[in-house]
Amino acid sequence: MAVYTHLDAGAMADIVASFDIGQLVSAKGIAEGVSNSNWLIETTGANGKGARFILTMYEFRIDLDDLPYFLSLLDHLAAKGCPVPRTIHARDGRLYQVRDAKALALIEFLPGVSVADPTPAQAGAVGAALAQMHLAAADFPQTRPNGMDRAEWQRLLDACGHDGLSAIDPVLADLVEEALPRLAAQWPEGLPRSVIHADLFPDNVLMLGDRVTGLIDFYFACNDTTAYDVAVTHAAWCFDSAGKAFHADISAALLEGYESVRPLLPEERAALPVLAQGAAIRFTASRAYDWLNTPADALVTRKDPMAFARRLAFYADPANAGVFA
Amino acid sequence: MAVYTHLDAGAMADIVASFDIGQLVSAKGIAEGVSNSNWLIETTGANGKGARFILTMYEFRIDLDDLPYFLSLLDHLAAKGCPVPRTIHARDGRLYQVRDAKALALIEFLPGVSVADPTPAQAGAVGAALAQMHLAAADFPQTRPNGMDRAEWQRLLDACGHDGLSAIDPVLADLVEEALPRLAAQWPEGLPRSVIHADLFPDNVLMLGDRVTGLIDFYFACNDTTAYDVAVTHAAWCFDSAGKAFHADISAALLEGYESVRPLLPEERAALPVLAQGAAIRFTASRAYDWLNTPADALVTRKDPMAFARRLAFYADPANAGVFA
Repeated sequence: MAVYTHLDAGAMADIVASFDIGQLVSAKGIAEGVSNSNWLIETTGANGKGARFILTMYEFRIDLDDLPYFLSLLDHLAAKGCPVPRTIHARDGRLYQVRDAKALALIEFLPGVSVADPTPAQAGAVGAALAQMHLAAADFPQTRPNGMDRAEWQRLLDACGHDGLSAIDPVLADLVEEALPRLAAQWPEGLPRSVIHADLFPDNVLMLGDRVTGLIDFYFACNDTTAYDVAVTHAAWCFDSAGKAFHADISAALLEGYESVRPLLPEERAALPVLAQGAAIRFTASRAYDWLNTPADALVTRKDPMAFARRLAFYADPANAGVFA
Repeated sequence: MAVYTHLDAGAMADIVASFDIGQLVSAKGIAEGVSNSNWLIETTGANGKGARFILTMYEFRIDLDDLPYFLSLLDHLAAKGCPVPRTIHARDGRLYQVRDAKALALIEFLPGVSVADPTPAQAGAVGAALAQMHLAAADFPQTRPNGMDRAEWQRLLDACGHDGLSAIDPVLADLVEEALPRLAAQWPEGLPRSVIHADLFPDNVLMLGDRVTGLIDFYFACNDTTAYDVAVTHAAWCFDSAGKAFHADISAALLEGYESVRPLLPEERAALPVLAQGAAIRFTASRAYDWLNTPADALVTRKDPMAFARRLAFYADPANAGVFA
């Protein structure tokens, strides 16, 4: 959550000049993104009426070969009316440019704020926006494998080791060691696939009142099981942040909102308990790995893996089977 | 350069509601300020036309008793046409409010970007804006002593110690130990006093082309010798960041711009070489103290004290007396 690179006014004006967006009026580094630097930029606009943009510099952990997928996807979705920021193409048509060995992209600024404690109406709107995105991406021609798939969960958790996981919490190692092989055996095959966001946490949704004004941060987007994205979004929205309290009203509203746009197939609905356990393990794994490999005083705040381990236990409990019934 | 506190959408909307500025539309944490958190906020505006503001949460190192001075000064200067952000008063008239034991203030957003390599025309505009501020503040009724006065330089450098300073650079200890008593003896008394900004670095000036659109960050503002502020600004603008190259054209333009609004008295001009050495020691002292007391891996980037020690040597060199002649 920082700006890692300093861009002075001259460099910024130079970047702005490579787009047809008028003259630079303001540029503020914003505290978003852990692996990139972002600036909120204002210009006089192509038509002189003023316009705002987010400039992103990719600092770490991104494969440049993935950028066309992420940035073209935004264009594709925006053209279909999804609330995502358009990618601003440079005057020469490029989606991104490289300066000082770092890639830069410019996207539309969208209004709205992230909601920490959603109402059912807001959760319903998020579900509907997710379904709209799934449908709109159906004819997106590019593909990208899921870099955070089951093999990667296993790799991250193996790297933590039984002792590492136990050091985080006495129950954590047993919990994931029981779940991983079971989920591998139960994992559904043959369900509909599509582009998925794969990280649609409240931080990545902008809202004004009950309206979704922006789905953002598509840097985990990939092609995978569509219902898995519903499961990720469910795990991200339907609990308190510690994963201790389940909010049944949010859950019901999220699923109802989703199905108002794209009804789930019976086999997708039946798979949700397993997919949701997978989603919970996916974030448990990345958080546990980061927990053990991030210095306590680092720039990045460590997130508690147990918040998602508790979700895993919740989804695995037969007493909660009714959630997705 | 970070946002230390998370304010969720509900808390943010609650804060916005305490002002007559319409509804919250967007809020982005911005990477400015080392001792406070800042957000760029957009609302529908009191008249529905949209408006933008900077919300500041004071996290560290501020005496709440000083806030009325800083915030009233902005109002006073803005009312006189100086390019400074107005303080937005809450519905109940308050200049600031305290939430969760932290003070919050809202100020106007101003366009413009900070210029790293100013042109002479830009330096002239900065000089003129500084002089305008000095004149406009003449009838500001509140006063605040300079917390970074000569006694404080001495205290900071004593805390570093001869060995600490020598560890930073072999020449540093001797340089300041020669200069401090000499400047104490030569320090001018009886020069005109006023409100001074005391920290008018390029970072704290917003510009559009050659026009100053904002003087910001008044958190070192105080009442002190007016010409000392000219000296601080000179030290901040007329060198490369390492303090190795002096830019005579910027220096001449800055002073000429200043005098186009407020001509310096002969005794002020005569005192500038000593005042500029003082300004150089002031930043050498705070940077040296921070250098020795900030972990190398801390959130805050350490700034090289030698960049200002070199300016001290420059201003002390009789060969450079012509700069202020």
